[in-house]
Amino acid sequence: MLEAVRIVLTRPIYSGNIGAVCRVMANMGLSDLVLAGAGIADPVEARKMACGARDVLEACRQVGGLAAAVADCTLVIGATAREGLYRQHCRTPREWAPEILAAAQAGRVALVFGPEDNGLNNSEIALCTRLMRIPSSPAYASLNLSHAVMICAYELFVAAGVFTPPAEKSVEALSAKKERMFALWERMLLKIGFMEPVMAAHMMQGVRRIFTRGRLSDDDVRILMGIARQVEWYVDKRKQSRPAPGAADGA
Amino acid sequence: MLEAVRIVLTRPIYSGNIGAVCRVMANMGLSDLVLAGAGIADPVEARKMACGARDVLEACRQVGGLAAAVADCTLVIGATAREGLYRQHCRTPREWAPEILAAAQAGRVALVFGPEDNGLNNSEIALCTRLMRIPSSPAYASLNLSHAVMICAYELFVAAGVFTPPAEKSVEALSAKKERMFALWERMLLKIGFMEPVMAAHMMQGVRRIFTRGRLSDDDVRILMGIARQVEWYVDKRKQSRPAPGAADGA
Repeated sequence: MLEAVRIVLTRPIYSGNIGAVCRVMANMGLSDLVLAGAGIADPVEARKMACGARDVLEACRQVGGLAAAVADCTLVIGATAREGLYRQHCRTPREWAPEILAAAQAGRVALVFGPEDNGLNNSEIALCTRLMRIPSSPAYASLNLSHAVMICAYELFVAAGVFTPPAEKSVEALSAKKERMFALWERMLLKIGFMEPVMAAHMMQGVRRIFTRGRLSDDDVRILMGIARQVEWYVDKRKQSRPAPGAADGA
Repeated sequence: MLEAVRIVLTRPIYSGNIGAVCRVMANMGLSDLVLAGAGIADPVEARKMACGARDVLEACRQVGGLAAAVADCTLVIGATAREGLYRQHCRTPREWAPEILAAAQAGRVALVFGPEDNGLNNSEIALCTRLMRIPSSPAYASLNLSHAVMICAYELFVAAGVFTPPAEKSVEALSAKKERMFALWERMLLKIGFMEPVMAAHMMQGVRRIFTRGRLSDDDVRILMGIARQVEWYVDKRKQSRPAPGAADGA
C-alpha cells in the first residue's frame, strides 16, 4: 500500500528540507516524491540532508504545479496548520490513515504539503479532497516541513502494520521456574542471616514484589538463580576455610 | 504532565540538530532540554534551526554526562535503533506513552537520545530503566536525531490529550433540512429537463448518493439549495423573455 502513497512538496523553498523529506520517506517506507512549482536550488545541501536516502532524492520528479502533481491520484490530502472557512473539516493524520491506506490499495494517493513560509494557498487547497491538521501546541504550532512529513508518513507506516518490533528472544518464565528461584533465594537469605526464619515468609513477600513487578524472562530467572547459588557457594567456602565466623578479613 | 518530561541529548554532534530538537519540543509542548557530555559548537546554526523556539534553546542546560542529566528523574527511557542482548525489551513510543505520562505526574521523566552516529553506548543504556524503539523501515531504519525526538514527543503530546482539533463550526444538517434541499433539486432537475417525471425517483437516488456520501453541514445544504433556486430563477427568466424554448442562443 505504501508504494501507492505520493508525497508532494508544493513550491518548497529550502533544499535542505527537500533532502530531509527524502530521508523521512525512506525511514517510513515511502519512495514517490514530486516537487510542484519549484525545484532543488542547492543539490549539495539536499544530498547532505537526504543522507542514506539518495535514491529517493534522485528519483524525485519536478512538475509545474500541484494540479499536474496530483492528476493521477484519487485521494488528495492537504496538510494545513491555518484555520479558516474552508479549512474546518480537518482531521489528524491518525484519523485519516485508515482511509488513506484503503484508497492506496485501489489507486494512487497524494499527501500534499505547502511551502515553508505560508503553506498551501486557497487554489491549492481547492485541489485537495481532504485536509489534515497535525496536532501541535498552540504556543508554537508551526512544524518544520520535514517534521510535518515525518508525522504523516509515520502514522501511515504504523497504520500499515508492516513494522515488526524486535522479537523478545527469551520468553516469560513459568511460575514453577520462578518458584524454584524464590526457594533458592529464601534458603540463601536465611543462610547469610539477612532474615530470621520466623520472618522469612514476610520478608520473601517483599523480595517477590521486587522481582515480579515487571516481567521475568527465563534468562532473568537464570541470572537470579545464579546469584543465589554463588552467594551460597561463597558462604559455604568461607565456613570451610574459617570455622570461626566473624573473624576480621580486611574489613 | 508534559512539563515534567525532559529531553536529554547525549553527546550530540550537530548544532543544527540541537536547534531542530528545540523547535520540535516547542511544537509538542515540551521545554526541558539537557545536553549531556557535549555542548553547542555552532550557536548560529542552532538558533537558525530552532526558529521560533529560541526560548527552549536559551533555557537548555549542559551537564557532564548522562548520569548527571537524569539524576533527578524516576523513569529514564532510552531510544535505540540497534538490537542486541540487552536491547530486546524495547517497546514503541506509542506503547510507552501512557506509562511515561503516569510517571510524569509523580516525578520527572527523561527521554534519552544518543549521538547521531552511533546512538547510546552500553554504559548509557545501563542508566535507562526502559528502552524505546521507533518503528521504521528495515531498508533505512536510521532517523535523523530531531525526527526521532519528534516521533517520541508527538506520541506523548497526542497521548496527553491536550490537543483540541479545530472545531467544526457548521453542524451536520438535520434530515428534514436535507429533504427540503432534495425536493428543490428534484423540482429544478425536472424543470430543466434533466430527467423525465417517470424516471425522477430513480435519478434522485443517484443525486442523493452523491450528496450524502460524505457529511452535509447546514452551510453545505444552504449552498446546494441556493444553486437549485438560482437555476430555477434563470430558467423562469428565460421562459418569460423567450416564450419559444429551444431557440438557439449562441450554442
